[in-house]
Formats: sequence, structure tokens, C-alpha cells
Amino acid sequence: MTWSELSLIEAIRAALGGEAPERLVRGPGDDAAVVRSRPFAVTSIDAMVDGVHFRLGQATPADAGHRALAAALSDLAAMGADAGEAYVALGLPDGFSQADALGVLDGLLPLAKVTGTVLAGGDVTRAPALTIAVTAVGWADAEEDLVGRDGARPGDTVFVTGPLGASAAGLAILERRATGPDALLRAHLRPTPRLDEGRALARAGATAMIDLSDGLATDVAHVATRSGVRIEIDLDALPVAPGVAEVAEQLGTTTAQLAAGGGEDYELLACGPSGMPGGVPVGRVIRGPAGIALSDAHGEVALSGFEHRA
Amino acid sequence: MTWSELSLIEAIRAALGGEAPERLVRGPGDDAAVVRSRPFAVTSIDAMVDGVHFRLGQATPADAGHRALAAALSDLAAMGADAGEAYVALGLPDGFSQADALGVLDGLLPLAKVTGTVLAGGDVTRAPALTIAVTAVGWADAEEDLVGRDGARPGDTVFVTGPLGASAAGLAILERRATGPDALLRAHLRPTPRLDEGRALARAGATAMIDLSDGLATDVAHVATRSGVRIEIDLDALPVAPGVAEVAEQLGTTTAQLAAGGGEDYELLACGPSGMPGGVPVGRVIRGPAGIALSDAHGEVALSGFEHRA
Repeated sequence: MTWSELSLIEAIRAALGGEAPERLVRGPGDDAAVVRSRPFAVTSIDAMVDGVHFRLGQATPADAGHRALAAALSDLAAMGADAGEAYVALGLPDGFSQADALGVLDGLLPLAKVTGTVLAGGDVTRAPALTIAVTAVGWADAEEDLVGRDGARPGDTVFVTGPLGASAAGLAILERRATGPDALLRAHLRPTPRLDEGRALARAGATAMIDLSDGLATDVAHVATRSGVRIEIDLDALPVAPGVAEVAEQLGTTTAQLAAGGGEDYELLACGPSGMPGGVPVGRVIRGPAGIALSDAHGEVALSGFEHRA
Repeated sequence: MTWSELSLIEAIRAALGGEAPERLVRGPGDDAAVVRSRPFAVTSIDAMVDGVHFRLGQATPADAGHRALAAALSDLAAMGADAGEAYVALGLPDGFSQADALGVLDGLLPLAKVTGTVLAGGDVTRAPALTIAVTAVGWADAEEDLVGRDGARPGDTVFVTGPLGASAAGLAILERRATGPDALLRAHLRPTPRLDEGRALARAGATAMIDLSDGLATDVAHVATRSGVRIEIDLDALPVAPGVAEVAEQLGTTTAQLAAGGGEDYELLACGPSGMPGGVPVGRVIRGPAGIALSDAHGEVALSGFEHRA
């Protein structure tokens, strides 16, 4: 094992440099990290595995590191929390070089820095495939600053924070099933967690939020179920990234299928008052049996791979 | 994949029942858990992988679940923190049954309950081998209640909280390299994190603590290095579990090798004033170049597989 000499702790320490914030009382080097807290801790764990969530060869170790942290931070964004710390468990396969192992950190650390996240702890072990488990901890000062999935109310407007379908289209380009702009590739490999947007929406009165990790159709159904409401989405209103329509055509599918059925865009979906700033309106919340309806100018649309819930 | 129907979230919810404590503001079912915090958060992440940290066939999924949580909680114990929440990322291989997946929780949840730990979030994914990553979060009300690895001072006595060598001996029995009492097997498969002992030692004035996960010789060297002191361990003073000497004999090695060289006992090692209650004295801290010395009645001892640090 060529990575056996790797001291992740030393790498993290070096990466932190003298920049460890005052709230990090104890960091790497003790049995556990100690952080000066704020009143509410907001915590999510996400794991990504080579061959399941990404494929080395198509994605670099740095891409994988970035995506794993982005996915965990996206959950904090969906609550309206401020990013705090990340804890990373790395599983490295035999033959994985030390350079590759540090590559994971090279992808992860710039995203940590730009989001104000401190890599406060980690664990390195052998594993059959590259595995990156990230626990992201965020903070809030008041319970009212945080938004769950259960508060959507009839009369709310439904918003998304940015263009959809880019990640699914980027994956198709990566797998050479289509050609298209590099921006789509990048959207797939290096998604941006919408922390600022999440905070802004929470403060503007969002009643429910979720991050679009499994695809809008699936994710909005979670909000509908948890809130006990019916949510109607206008597929024609969905913002779509440039080039997605062209990729959809090459794949023999619809733009809506990529935008509402594709996952991992990591934009946020929020419900709230119609005047809420910071999002594109794409639907509305109505009374009725919990569930969703997707429609375009021609009427209700069924997406493949997605079962409508009654 | 037979576990595809598994809803870990539902299983966790069911396990929580109506017992979610008041501090858990939002639990499974939202993008992230929300916990009412105390002034200092103490956090550690640990991953265990089939074929690396345990072997299914020798260990059950429940054993693996217990051990993964115990290892993470042991880190909190070593800081003197109160256990709080656990977040679990499960990687399940193809062919892993839903019963096996729930078996992991069956091992994990009783330990969570007995330690006052709330399983507040999780993630389930496909993986080439059973992988259990646990982030344990503990809490403290004051920085002085917590102990790191860096405070050992010349004049301190060194203590351990319980018998050593049981886990290494238990592993030998499990692998049919020796025979011995079931209690040793159990010590290996179901270790107990020493949370009460850690808190008590921290309050009694411990200057440095570490949990014995890699073996006393290795772990005490971390304390010596971080504290900048020399630590002398009297191998004859190490408390040893019943049956360990007999297993050592069958293996053609010494009791000291299992007690000081074997890992995963998850007892604590603490430095502090000589009168400190709750531990067995096994050595002392002296001035000198950072490092350790292991000795018995015959003089200094070299353990195999361990390099002394100058």
C-alpha cells in the first residue's frame, strides 16, 4: 500500500496552516475535535463510493473529494444553516498512490475554504474502492432561522435556485453518450452547494426547502409527503442550463426529463410566499392529497423512472 | 440488490420511537438533523470496513455495528465529553440482505441507548464491502471539562481504566489460532467505550488522555510526542484480562505483547496526579526527550511490530 505513509492528519494540519478559526478549540491531533458551538447544530452525513457515485478515470480524485463535500454541504444549505466543520472518513484501495489520496483533499479543501468550512477531523483506512464519507456540521443561532421539509402550505409558490439538468447532461457527456459544453461537465463534477441562497430563502420566509440531489420530481415528492400538501410543477417554467436541450436531443429524451428527472444538480427547491426573492418560480402548493403533479403546456407529464405518488 | 427497499430513515425513526430527546429538534426525515447544542461540540469520525476491521462470517453485522459506534464513542470518552448524537453512513454490498442491513442497526442501537447517544442521521449507499462510517458528536459545558493528548507533565502518574490484551486475545480465538474464554471473544466483538471513566478522570484532573485503539505502546507514544515528555510504562503493572496469558502462551508470545502491543481494547490511558481515582497506575511521566520506554522486572522491553520513538 503506497499510501500507508500518508498522514492525513499532517496534511490537514498543513492545509489549515495558521488559519484555524477561533471556534476550533482542538483540531486534528487529538482523539476528537472540539468546537465552540452556536445554539443549534445542523448535521448531515453523506458517503460517495467509486463505481457507485463516480468513476475514477472519468472523475479525478479531486472531483470526487469536491463532490462528496458539496453533497454534504448542500444538505446544510437546504436547512438555511451556516457551514461550520467537515469530518472526512477516507477509504483508500490498494494501489492508490499517496498523490491520489492527497488529490482528494486538493478537491475538497478549496470548496471548504470558499464556503467557510473547516476540515476539523478525519479518518483514513483501507477499503476495496475509494470511499469518501463526509459529515458536515453547520450552525444557526435560532430555530426560526432553519427550514425543514414539512412546512409547505397551500398558497405557497415553489422556487428553484438555479438551472437544472446540467448534472445529468454533464454525466452523459462524461460517459461519451453525448457532446456539449464543458460547463455541463463541470456542473456534474464540481457542483456548488447553495449555502448563501439557502440562508437568504430561509430568512425571506421559506416554509419548506430541500436540495435537488435525487432529481426534482423525487425531491419535491418528499416535501409534498412531509408537508401533507399537493405540489404542482410547471415543467415549462424550469430554468435549464445552456446546452441541456441539445444533450437531451442527442439522448433521444426530453429536456424536462433531464431537468426534473436527473439528479445531483444541488440547486435548492423552496416553498414560500410568492414575492420571495432569490429563486425562479416553478410551481405552487395546493390543498389536496399529498403528492405532486408535473405538467407542461400539453397537460400532465409522466417522467420515466419516476413513480407518481397519489 | 435485496436491500434496495430498506429505508434506513424509517428504521431509525422506528428505533427512536417516541423517545427522541428534547435536544433533537429535527431528526431523520429532513436534509440534516438539528440539535440544540451545549457550549462545546466534541466530534470524531471512524470508519470500519469488512475485510479490514472485521470479517463477516467471524463477526455478525450486529457486531460490526456495535464496534463501529464503540470506536467513535471511545474517542469522545478520551476527551471527557458526554455522548450526544451519532450519524451513520452505511455502505452495503450487493447480496447483502435487508435483515443483515437491519442487523447492523441491531448492534448499534442498544449501545447507543445505553450510552445516551441518539442516532440522529444516516446515509445508505451501495459499496463493494460492508462499510460503516460513524460520526459521534459529544458535548461539554466548559473547555476545562475536556482533556487532550498534549497536557501530560513530568511528575504525572499514568493510568489505564481496565484490563488490556482482551481484544487481541479474543481476535486470536475468533481466528481459531487459540482457545480461551468467551469473555475475550466478547471483548473483541463488543468493546465498551469508557465514557463514564473518561468524564470522571477529566474531572479528577487528568492532564492528558487517549483511548487505546492502536495498542498501548503506539497510543502512549502519541501522548508523549504531543505533550513533549518521556513516558515510562511498567509492563508488569498492566492489568490483564483473565485468559490472556494462556492465549499468549498458545500463540508463542508474551502477555505483555498482547497487553501493550495489541489494539482495540478501547480502555483509556490517562496522565494526572498520583491520587487520581478510577484507574490502575501503570507508569509515570518524566522530563526528557519526547518518547516512551517500556520495561519489566528484567529491564527495557522491545515489542515486535512497534518502533520506539526517540
